[in-house]
Amino acid sequence: MGVAAVTGVNARKRVLILGGGFAGLFAAEEAARLPVDITLIDRKNHHTFQPLLYQVALAVLSPAEIAQPIRSVLHDHPNIEVLMDEAVGFDLAQRRVELKTGTRLDYDYLIVATGATHSYFGRDEWAKLAPGLKSIEDAIEIRRRVLLAFELAERQMQESGTHPPLNFIVVGGGPTGVELAGAIMDIAKLYMTKDFRHIDPSTAKVEILEGSPYLLGAYPPDLQKKAVEQLNALGVEVRTGAQVTDVQPGYVMVGNERIDAAVTLWAAGVEASPLGKLLGVPTDRRGCVIVDQFLNPPGHPEIFICGDLAHVEENGKQVPGVAQPAMQMGTYAAKRIGRLVTRDARGDSVGLNQPFHYFDKGDMATIGRKAAVARIKWPFHADWSGFPAWITWLFVHVFFLIGFRNRLTVFSQWAWTYLTLSDGARLITGSQELPGWEEKPGSDQGSSAQKPADIAVPKA
Amino acid sequence: MGVAAVTGVNARKRVLILGGGFAGLFAAEEAARLPVDITLIDRKNHHTFQPLLYQVALAVLSPAEIAQPIRSVLHDHPNIEVLMDEAVGFDLAQRRVELKTGTRLDYDYLIVATGATHSYFGRDEWAKLAPGLKSIEDAIEIRRRVLLAFELAERQMQESGTHPPLNFIVVGGGPTGVELAGAIMDIAKLYMTKDFRHIDPSTAKVEILEGSPYLLGAYPPDLQKKAVEQLNALGVEVRTGAQVTDVQPGYVMVGNERIDAAVTLWAAGVEASPLGKLLGVPTDRRGCVIVDQFLNPPGHPEIFICGDLAHVEENGKQVPGVAQPAMQMGTYAAKRIGRLVTRDARGDSVGLNQPFHYFDKGDMATIGRKAAVARIKWPFHADWSGFPAWITWLFVHVFFLIGFRNRLTVFSQWAWTYLTLSDGARLITGSQELPGWEEKPGSDQGSSAQKPADIAVPKA
Repeated sequence: MGVAAVTGVNARKRVLILGGGFAGLFAAEEAARLPVDITLIDRKNHHTFQPLLYQVALAVLSPAEIAQPIRSVLHDHPNIEVLMDEAVGFDLAQRRVELKTGTRLDYDYLIVATGATHSYFGRDEWAKLAPGLKSIEDAIEIRRRVLLAFELAERQMQESGTHPPLNFIVVGGGPTGVELAGAIMDIAKLYMTKDFRHIDPSTAKVEILEGSPYLLGAYPPDLQKKAVEQLNALGVEVRTGAQVTDVQPGYVMVGNERIDAAVTLWAAGVEASPLGKLLGVPTDRRGCVIVDQFLNPPGHPEIFICGDLAHVEENGKQVPGVAQPAMQMGTYAAKRIGRLVTRDARGDSVGLNQPFHYFDKGDMATIGRKAAVARIKWPFHADWSGFPAWITWLFVHVFFLIGFRNRLTVFSQWAWTYLTLSDGARLITGSQELPGWEEKPGSDQGSSAQKPADIAVPKA
Repeated sequence: MGVAAVTGVNARKRVLILGGGFAGLFAAEEAARLPVDITLIDRKNHHTFQPLLYQVALAVLSPAEIAQPIRSVLHDHPNIEVLMDEAVGFDLAQRRVELKTGTRLDYDYLIVATGATHSYFGRDEWAKLAPGLKSIEDAIEIRRRVLLAFELAERQMQESGTHPPLNFIVVGGGPTGVELAGAIMDIAKLYMTKDFRHIDPSTAKVEILEGSPYLLGAYPPDLQKKAVEQLNALGVEVRTGAQVTDVQPGYVMVGNERIDAAVTLWAAGVEASPLGKLLGVPTDRRGCVIVDQFLNPPGHPEIFICGDLAHVEENGKQVPGVAQPAMQMGTYAAKRIGRLVTRDARGDSVGLNQPFHYFDKGDMATIGRKAAVARIKWPFHADWSGFPAWITWLFVHVFFLIGFRNRLTVFSQWAWTYLTLSDGARLITGSQELPGWEEKPGSDQGSSAQKPADIAVPKA
């Protein structure tokens, strides 16, 4: 019997997981049941529930409601440890990872799940002008800019009787772009109207600029159409085939056309984590690692690539880079490691031929406060839009939210905000400058001092 | 009758309030009932509920739970407008305030309530090394440092088998210092022990360094003694008569003694807002404006100084710079403006001789998760300590919390955290560097690579 080998000193295999996103966390939870020692490494101390990040950016939820310390999530598993650090190099022959702090960690099995970020198509100087939405820090920065635009407009209106147009430009018409645009429109039309005396927040313009001919490219055409209709009904303009050629403070260019932008947000492009290329294995043009049906790069059955970093094809179609497949890949990789460990210990090869299969339950994207589009594939097939899709979206997302406490608070927060149109979390923290926003005191100080009464008296 | 004058074009008086803290907000709420037009100006878009700021710093509450947009708080009053801006100059003769953006605002009555901040006694270079606690940004920075210290210790322990002592030094033994110290000890001993595999968070040392001979100087001696006892019982060391003479990355100096500090926090000294001096009226050595019994600086019955910026004496004793007197001053100033407006309109001088009187209901400070000291003066007299004081503290603070929604969420958050010892809001955002924390990989890379098994295997 192989029992001695399993309990022997050298038999306990070391599993190293890079990344604490959906893929890494699901891999860790699944691997926790195996007779292995697991180290999960992430740059951040917290897991971020990405699908709700836009609600932090638009001041509905607080950061702590959608993020949770990775240590806390995993602390009940004695065979998992969590390390806040970053992989910076690999020695695949020695099965060793080098960390930023100089330490090297050996592994028997390696799961790389460091994800992807938005891509500025080589124009990294746009990042400061048009923040994207990948981290809690990003969300707070977007929140700051959107809220600040209204504050600065109010101030300038009061002081000079005019303000730059409140144009919010969202570059990219995928789910994130659609959700951001809908949420900004909601904020402007529903939540802020009572707060200002000089400007009318509901005159804000929100526009999505999508380079391809289709909004929500991954969805079926009829849902794409419904999404555009619902966005338009909300007041969001959608322009497809609109390639942004330049981003400047205060405006963006689409070809020769200049579009004014009080705030520009970036929801276009995907670029894989640089670790993909560092591995020295084949990657696609976005830097995603091309893996086989077992999620292994060629020649490395001990390495698994999971989540957005993986380029997996099934029946000739690429598995999309969203939360569901990431969770499933993480779970699959851990299960396969379990089978490999069993094989090594007992020579048992049960299930070793079973490839990864993406079980697609459907996709959804919200459009503002009570509309959404959903393509449901499980437990039944349906294409939904409008309010039923929104309710479905709500329950699915609350259900998957990491941590029971968070589920409760998020749900009560939503209910409260939804029912009362109340304040949410509209804090501006950090700098009070907005790129491209120039204060134009309507007149010089001498003349403005001549009519201060106009300035000081609110429209009571 | 003076009715014509009241409703006449020029009769509507302009009230300008600088600062949206307790004093400014209470002044605005009270003045909203008067036939006046009010403009409230603050640099931030939100009011911060200062007494609970340390709970954000120690990851129990989220920023949005103790802060609320000033606009939202006041939006039901049509005669109030809110402006996010900053006063930078005064023309008292013309009754005019100059704002940072260049605009000038005229006023008939001016309420200056821009508060105070901590003072580094002229050593402003210490600010980066030992953050204080006045704003949401400060609280997030303190949270970042405290949580990061545990993460870095865990990492270093795992990598080199040793870590710098987890010493948390709190400079200043007033209520804020006591609350910060107690809360850090709680976090270390109660909430984090399950999360780490290599370090023992409960070995953290927390020390209060107070320059004067007394902890909680404003409290009666027996409560001071009880506070020290309760802090000691929790494990917090208290050193009085310990003047900090230098703050450096990784340590502080008390005379010639060097005290190691993984994190140093600043809760000492008070320095008034610079607007006090800008007014050109007499100030005390901290920059607080010396006002008479009507809260007016000499010769300016139209100007009121409220809150921490005011130096008010009653029966030869200075009114303390805490929340209660600030609220009462704001309310008083607005009421007095109402009387002055009535006098001008109708010649009626009722109540014009009534001076400001501080109605002292008592003071309290919490010490960790279930102890506090409270000197209650209303509705009965009592000096309490321990659990009853803590329960009182809890209800008083929830009761005064601005905004009903916040009250509910803060209360449920507390109940949840208290009952489950659960995670709270332990997010590290921003930089991952800690001043004075030097990574000392135990050995060079070659030798550390020789024994990677020791490193990768958690203590399962």
